[in-house]
Amino acid sequence: MERIPILKLGDCLIISLQIDLHDRLALAMQDDLANMVVKTGARGVLIDISGLDMVDSFIGRILGNVATLCRVLDAETVIVGMQPAVAITLVELGVTWDNVRTALNVERGMAFLRLHLDASQAMQTAPEENHDDADAGE
Amino acid sequence: MERIPILKLGDCLIISLQIDLHDRLALAMQDDLANMVVKTGARGVLIDISGLDMVDSFIGRILGNVATLCRVLDAETVIVGMQPAVAITLVELGVTWDNVRTALNVERGMAFLRLHLDASQAMQTAPEENHDDADAGE
Repeated sequence: MERIPILKLGDCLIISLQIDLHDRLALAMQDDLANMVVKTGARGVLIDISGLDMVDSFIGRILGNVATLCRVLDAETVIVGMQPAVAITLVELGVTWDNVRTALNVERGMAFLRLHLDASQAMQTAPEENHDDADAGE
Repeated sequence: MERIPILKLGDCLIISLQIDLHDRLALAMQDDLANMVVKTGARGVLIDISGLDMVDSFIGRILGNVATLCRVLDAETVIVGMQPAVAITLVELGVTWDNVRTALNVERGMAFLRLHLDASQAMQTAPEENHDDADAGE
């Protein structure tokens, strides 16, 4: 059975969707990605959909689910490379992706992930400092 | 007509092959990649073939051509993620890929590209220094 390869690059995972996601493939992708996030401890996921010429509501929903799934597993997700026609279709279909980050291309997506990961790392390492500030303010 | 997306990440290009490359698609990929290298001035190309379960001599030759093509355009190429069965097939087919770099996975491939690019950059920026050394030696 065909699978979509997931590339690991540092603490990020990269998936490039090129073929039409039929039901089984989409669910397999979702499973693989969740397993990969857990196995590698990835903090960011970048999904490139520049290879998709069209989407339907099923794919729109799957991509939204994947992003939510990754967030639950503490990995930020960015969807990049959306073609204008795909964006139009998604809006017309009423797929709003409220929780999904998008970026124009891979570079901007990676820049966002980098920024997000740096910020969350800074928040994790600096609780003591914040505490000191709070004390000083009192 | 379907196309294989090429992802630009810094001064490297990443291609993930997932579907069987028939003749036209392979040639289109070769064209697109060459154009992209010229357009973006990329210094490194990473081709992930972890999605390919099998290869034939045609694909083997195309991949070898692509690597040579990129080298001519001054971009180092690494092929990563080869499955064991694919490696066995290539050797049995007599495809030797003398000029092609391979790496186990994306991370090692990127590490090689980084190293190679740093080294070639150091050589480009340090000719004066070498010249001084030569003078000192005389």
